[in-house]
Amino acid sequence: MKFSLGEICESIGASLEGDPELMIEGVSSLQETNPARLCFAENKQYLEQVRSGAAGGVIVDRDFPDLPGHRLLRVENPRHAFIRVTEMFLEPARVEGIHPAAIVHDSAQLDGQVSVGACATVAADARIGELTIVQSGARIGPGVVIGRECLIEANAVILDGVTLGDRVIIHAGAVIGGEGFGFVWMKDHHHKVPQIGTVVIEDDVEIGCNSCVDRATLGVTRIGRGTKIDNLVQVAHNDQIGEHVIICGHAAIGGSATLGNGVIIGGAATLRDHVTVGDGAMVGGTAAVAAKVEPGMSVLGIPARPVDKAKREIAAIPRLPDLLKAFKAQKKEFEALKVRVAELEGNGDPRE
Amino acid sequence: MKFSLGEICESIGASLEGDPELMIEGVSSLQETNPARLCFAENKQYLEQVRSGAAGGVIVDRDFPDLPGHRLLRVENPRHAFIRVTEMFLEPARVEGIHPAAIVHDSAQLDGQVSVGACATVAADARIGELTIVQSGARIGPGVVIGRECLIEANAVILDGVTLGDRVIIHAGAVIGGEGFGFVWMKDHHHKVPQIGTVVIEDDVEIGCNSCVDRATLGVTRIGRGTKIDNLVQVAHNDQIGEHVIICGHAAIGGSATLGNGVIIGGAATLRDHVTVGDGAMVGGTAAVAAKVEPGMSVLGIPARPVDKAKREIAAIPRLPDLLKAFKAQKKEFEALKVRVAELEGNGDPRE
Amino acid sequence: MKFSLGEICESIGASLEGDPELMIEGVSSLQETNPARLCFAENKQYLEQVRSGAAGGVIVDRDFPDLPGHRLLRVENPRHAFIRVTEMFLEPARVEGIHPAAIVHDSAQLDGQVSVGACATVAADARIGELTIVQSGARIGPGVVIGRECLIEANAVILDGVTLGDRVIIHAGAVIGGEGFGFVWMKDHHHKVPQIGTVVIEDDVEIGCNSCVDRATLGVTRIGRGTKIDNLVQVAHNDQIGEHVIICGHAAIGGSATLGNGVIIGGAATLRDHVTVGDGAMVGGTAAVAAKVEPGMSVLGIPARPVDKAKREIAAIPRLPDLLKAFKAQKKEFEALKVRVAELEGNGDPRE
Repeated sequence: MKFSLGEICESIGASLEGDPELMIEGVSSLQETNPARLCFAENKQYLEQVRSGAAGGVIVDRDFPDLPGHRLLRVENPRHAFIRVTEMFLEPARVEGIHPAAIVHDSAQLDGQVSVGACATVAADARIGELTIVQSGARIGPGVVIGRECLIEANAVILDGVTLGDRVIIHAGAVIGGEGFGFVWMKDHHHKVPQIGTVVIEDDVEIGCNSCVDRATLGVTRIGRGTKIDNLVQVAHNDQIGEHVIICGHAAIGGSATLGNGVIIGGAATLRDHVTVGDGAMVGGTAAVAAKVEPGMSVLGIPARPVDKAKREIAAIPRLPDLLKAFKAQKKEFEALKVRVAELEGNGDPRE
Repeated sequence: MKFSLGEICESIGASLEGDPELMIEGVSSLQETNPARLCFAENKQYLEQVRSGAAGGVIVDRDFPDLPGHRLLRVENPRHAFIRVTEMFLEPARVEGIHPAAIVHDSAQLDGQVSVGACATVAADARIGELTIVQSGARIGPGVVIGRECLIEANAVILDGVTLGDRVIIHAGAVIGGEGFGFVWMKDHHHKVPQIGTVVIEDDVEIGCNSCVDRATLGVTRIGRGTKIDNLVQVAHNDQIGEHVIICGHAAIGGSATLGNGVIIGGAATLRDHVTVGDGAMVGGTAAVAAKVEPGMSVLGIPARPVDKAKREIAAIPRLPDLLKAFKAQKKEFEALKVRVAELEGNGDPRE
Repeated sequence: MKFSLGEICESIGASLEGDPELMIEGVSSLQETNPARLCFAENKQYLEQVRSGAAGGVIVDRDFPDLPGHRLLRVENPRHAFIRVTEMFLEPARVEGIHPAAIVHDSAQLDGQVSVGACATVAADARIGELTIVQSGARIGPGVVIGRECLIEANAVILDGVTLGDRVIIHAGAVIGGEGFGFVWMKDHHHKVPQIGTVVIEDDVEIGCNSCVDRATLGVTRIGRGTKIDNLVQVAHNDQIGEHVIICGHAAIGGSATLGNGVIIGGAATLRDHVTVGDGAMVGGTAAVAAKVEPGMSVLGIPARPVDKAKREIAAIPRLPDLLKAFKAQKKEFEALKVRVAELEGNGDPRE
């Protein structure tokens, strides 16, 4: 795939300093420039890197200094423009149909142009929307409903009765619809609480590699539209995750938690069962949320508390060992002073 | 499947206020009542929800207030009774035999009524007990022994020579019998310590989605009867996990650890290599156990310490920044006071 | 497989006290000795265990006491010698060729003696070096390059275009080459940043079960020669991991992090995006690295700080509750003392 610099400028609304006829074959980072590839510089801090590079062109902002001899594509937001250009060069996902070694149950309903890879399985009564791709080794359980233009990567597992919207991406090895972890102690054993609810994943959601989303005990575990979840994340039974939420790698959301819209959960953060995190709140990396987080609030620490408070406390801890020493020294001096005062008072006993 | 209210009452030993002929088709939560479904209210705190709902019947305890117009099923323990009713409505697992696209080695021994799903594999010399279900894409390695009535979910992996008891559930994507993580530095490289031990999982154990249980370096990694392990948990080489243990999601148990019977490990807790956790001990969520935990003790925090101690310390930390300020202010005042005492003593030098 | 004690002594350079003709059939731990098996005792602390055991022979160091009636094999380093003996008894990996139920694309290039298990898939243009074993259910994506003598365990996934060196082990369920987690907010949605980079894994690397290594956004996520990674570890996009690094279970490495050679990352430790950890540095278990770690430094804690400092602070925290009390008591006494000094000065107001 190739595009001329002129075509690219037109598609991202850039003004160009340089030759519009030059053919571009792809993109690169600013660290590894290539005369046939385009890169971007977020701002003028990267001036030297741009000057010393040999890119086919560099997307920069309106304020970037002139650099004679370099092809600058000036735009409002270089990062966004670079993403658009990268997308121009993406190969469209190949719709390859049903592989002869795929196992699709007779009762499954596949819309037009669905791909199912080798050794993938689609169980009874499953329904898959058009242009969806099920990669090799993925498991689509009985009664699962998948929308259009989804991607179910290799060896991902969608268990019985789960529902996915349109343009959902389930990355390799993720498991959607595992049983919630619920037991009650009955006399002499942990007795399983039947997990008969399901999972609903709305449009444009992405679930990372080897992440797990458990089905509800009763009702629905829901992941709202546009939410993006990284690798190795646990979403437990009955969680209600809002829209456009970000959950970074290794985070663990306890059962029956509620996350509002636009929430951001940092890497390896943990949320206790039943907590609520309000719209637009941010939970820092490794924070342990044990109580409600109000909308818009940022929290940090173990246990999680407002970020300013947490930072002040975290900064104070290194001063504690010296404080302990200083207090001990002062205490001694204080006792000595009390004796002196008692002596001045003509009284041998310093304690009153 | 349908049961009359009368049948249900009989099976859970409930007294009934209402029509025993009414047919019930399933269960629901108290939040989403349905005239054909049964729900439960743990205690009278849920009185308003019961009153405003439209359930086919509500399982309540003996002390729950009368509610004319509602069908109340009175029992000793509403939660337990509700679980029993839910189980009445569960579809029995379908034994579907060996799928034509399953690959079962000639030397494998399968008892009667075993199911092996599409694209699942059963390797040489594996043995599988009756009524066990191996879902699609699951891998049963060479020489693996699996008891009766087990469920090996989709894409789970049981590696060479591992032994599973009866009624064991291995959830989707879990890996049992991976090599322990053991290396010694030899001159110029980390040299692998051969991991030639195995894993034994006793009866009624459940292992969550994408969890990992490593084989022993020598000997056996053992998971005791009735133990339940959540998703994304690591159980390392040579761990000895007792009976009826609960390990919540994202917990990581270091190598050669010993957990007694009835231990509870909270979510995302970590245990250092070689630690011992005594019978009935509880490790709080995100706690980091670095030393022995005595039987029956509850620990919390990083590093883990007795829960009362940990809570007192965690509550004290927010007061540290103010303490540092107050101490500094007091120190100044104290120095001033010393000068004044020295003056009273007729001595210009406050230090002696 | 059997070897005589004499043969074993020769291969590990041991002097022998006992019968060189005795045939040995394997190894065991010191806890479960067997007259036909060899075990080892790291040092003389294990004297009693050796004395009471019934091993076919015990590998000990030069200083170990004589034990008449026991066959001692004296060497410089008993642990290393025991590993060597264990390796003598390992079955060589069986090269079994392409299973009839494996799906290998016509355009894939497999060197001689490659094994591909049942229901494994090798996609278009993949290349696999000789003696490499791809177990059942593993996925080798389009254009993947795998060196010689590698082991790709059951249900592991190697996505498009990833490159593996020689003797690489990818354990069961691991995913190599998942998309990096990168989004930018565009008006009303998190817009995916195309992840068009790749992953390069060098010779002799091992990646644990269900771990994830993401591809770079642009360029390469690299894991250096001889590095060993445990189970359930996240390596994010664009990470540069040095040679002979150890990363223990449940660790999470943020995006664009740089780890030098010989770094050790403890279990469940986390590294923030973009941090650098210098050659030979050690990050303790559960530590949260938020800033650069200098070469050779050991860090601990949340946030991670030099280990001595961290330990001093962690030891100080339990003293904080008492300090708060003591300070409050002293403050009261101090105010009283000020009044007394003021009285001595003939001035009723203690504050000046």
